[in-house]
Amino acid sequence: MAATKTYLTGVKPTGEPHLGNYLGALKPALEAAREYDAYYFIADYHALTTVRDPEVLRHNIRSVAATWLACGLDPERTVVYRQSDIPETFELTWILSCVTGKGLMNRAHAYKAARDRNAAAGLADLDAGVNMGLFNYPILMAVDILIMETDLVPVGRDQAQHVEYAADIAGSFNHLFGDGYTFRIPQGVFPDGDASVLPGVDGRKMSKSYDNHIPLFLPENKLKKLVRRIPTDSTPVEDPKDPDSSVVFQLLTHFADAERVSETRKRLEAGGMGWGELKNELFEAINTEVAPKRERYEQLMAPDSELDDILAEGARHARERARRVLSRVRAAVGID
Amino acid sequence: MAATKTYLTGVKPTGEPHLGNYLGALKPALEAAREYDAYYFIADYHALTTVRDPEVLRHNIRSVAATWLACGLDPERTVVYRQSDIPETFELTWILSCVTGKGLMNRAHAYKAARDRNAAAGLADLDAGVNMGLFNYPILMAVDILIMETDLVPVGRDQAQHVEYAADIAGSFNHLFGDGYTFRIPQGVFPDGDASVLPGVDGRKMSKSYDNHIPLFLPENKLKKLVRRIPTDSTPVEDPKDPDSSVVFQLLTHFADAERVSETRKRLEAGGMGWGELKNELFEAINTEVAPKRERYEQLMAPDSELDDILAEGARHARERARRVLSRVRAAVGID
Repeated sequence: MAATKTYLTGVKPTGEPHLGNYLGALKPALEAAREYDAYYFIADYHALTTVRDPEVLRHNIRSVAATWLACGLDPERTVVYRQSDIPETFELTWILSCVTGKGLMNRAHAYKAARDRNAAAGLADLDAGVNMGLFNYPILMAVDILIMETDLVPVGRDQAQHVEYAADIAGSFNHLFGDGYTFRIPQGVFPDGDASVLPGVDGRKMSKSYDNHIPLFLPENKLKKLVRRIPTDSTPVEDPKDPDSSVVFQLLTHFADAERVSETRKRLEAGGMGWGELKNELFEAINTEVAPKRERYEQLMAPDSELDDILAEGARHARERARRVLSRVRAAVGID
Repeated sequence: MAATKTYLTGVKPTGEPHLGNYLGALKPALEAAREYDAYYFIADYHALTTVRDPEVLRHNIRSVAATWLACGLDPERTVVYRQSDIPETFELTWILSCVTGKGLMNRAHAYKAARDRNAAAGLADLDAGVNMGLFNYPILMAVDILIMETDLVPVGRDQAQHVEYAADIAGSFNHLFGDGYTFRIPQGVFPDGDASVLPGVDGRKMSKSYDNHIPLFLPENKLKKLVRRIPTDSTPVEDPKDPDSSVVFQLLTHFADAERVSETRKRLEAGGMGWGELKNELFEAINTEVAPKRERYEQLMAPDSELDDILAEGARHARERARRVLSRVRAAVGID
């Protein structure tokens, strides 16, 4: 019997998830994790490249963990921890910096995007506003992966580079110091899941940057209001309607069961069902899915919940693994 | 009464010191340290940007500490430790990366020198062969200084930038997160000492890169041979000689006492003193200075000497200080 593969996911605590994140990433990743020896970490030190408010960061860190647990992550089966609870990560980051060519960082997507923005803004200094956390973060990300001896990392299409870099940096170390320690080479996996994209309230892809999103854990009354405010046309209640051109109906298809969706489609096409009724149906469907999770999320976010104990226990497990790797790496380079 | 200032020195363990390092840096720094609350650390993780052989690094780390102790560092008064024994350093390096502009690193001397070498070699990629350890090392060096709440750092003229960068990075952090923690701003001090430069065996400045150096702890018989091989002209023993154009005499002025130097000068100018006799005198003068230190160095370098206990005790002191700083910094940024 083959050993269970190690599967690692990290999320940067920079804000609350919306329904698009939930369906497109969170839910499929939590389902996939059940097949593996899974590690989930909150990349709090990655957030520090942009977050400057300690209160916001504190809140966001707990919020990420509470979201995972509320959405079904089982801490008995999956190790959940904060990156900042694994100090070995930062020592290994220095070690691997010394075997990482600067050229690799020059070509990193996030850094190149920052330079492109500066160029588009007509700035002479293309590095303006770029901090060394942003420039170095592919190395930190590689370490997050390598220090857990990870086999598989679920990645979106635009994140494949992170895992390629981790493999590349591990390869450099193995080449130079492989007599002493050999890093496991990680692979990216593309979660199959539902390839269709959840629309936002304006019909474009749901995204915070479009400000068209529905937060996952919006309180019930606010969720109802937000759904009611989704723009619709002025077709009278009794007239037939085209479900496929309605954002409300599109959203419904993601939350209601197939039978209900098919019945609603018929009623819209036949006429006699108004937008208001459709919106109530959408609200009920979303709320049925999220209400128990929201309740659990709110329990976990309370100041003295078991959240902190769960994170401490996860840190204990993850750190044991990290310590083992770091001590072998130190010996391999001659620092022991 | 004013509190004693904190004085910090670090040395990269990349090889054995020579007599020029001893007189020009080691001896004056050890003397200056007696006035302060002094910290001496072996910058072993800095060496990793270039050293790829674990055995060499292991040897060099012990050798730096043994050299200091043999040359008079008193571990009861001065804290001596290895950088790698303070893991808090690397976590703080990440935190301060996030407040350090990339532009600052672009202008660092060592990085610019590497680019200049590539340009001179006609390479199109000016970052060829530059690793991220080299590019990041001014941040690590800033952390070495800041994490000990250092007031004063002795620097050579070409190292002033390190302390300026540390002050600059500390200032950025204080500006962004100063409500939570304020770093002490360090200052560079230029050890006055003997400004004259020790010549190597070929008359140029003593330097490993010229291969004209006399290693500090060369065994006695090898030291004698090396001194005897210093090139001299063929003036016969009985002829008068010009002391000021003789490298052997120049070296003597640094090791013999003033009376002896003045007497030897007269004998050379009068004629009757040959180069061989002068060389014997130089050998005796150097050996008188270094023999007790060499003996102590060799005791300390033995596998089970007290060296490791001294380093462990130093690490305990230094780490206590580093832990206190890091925990306040973590709270200031919201990671606690």
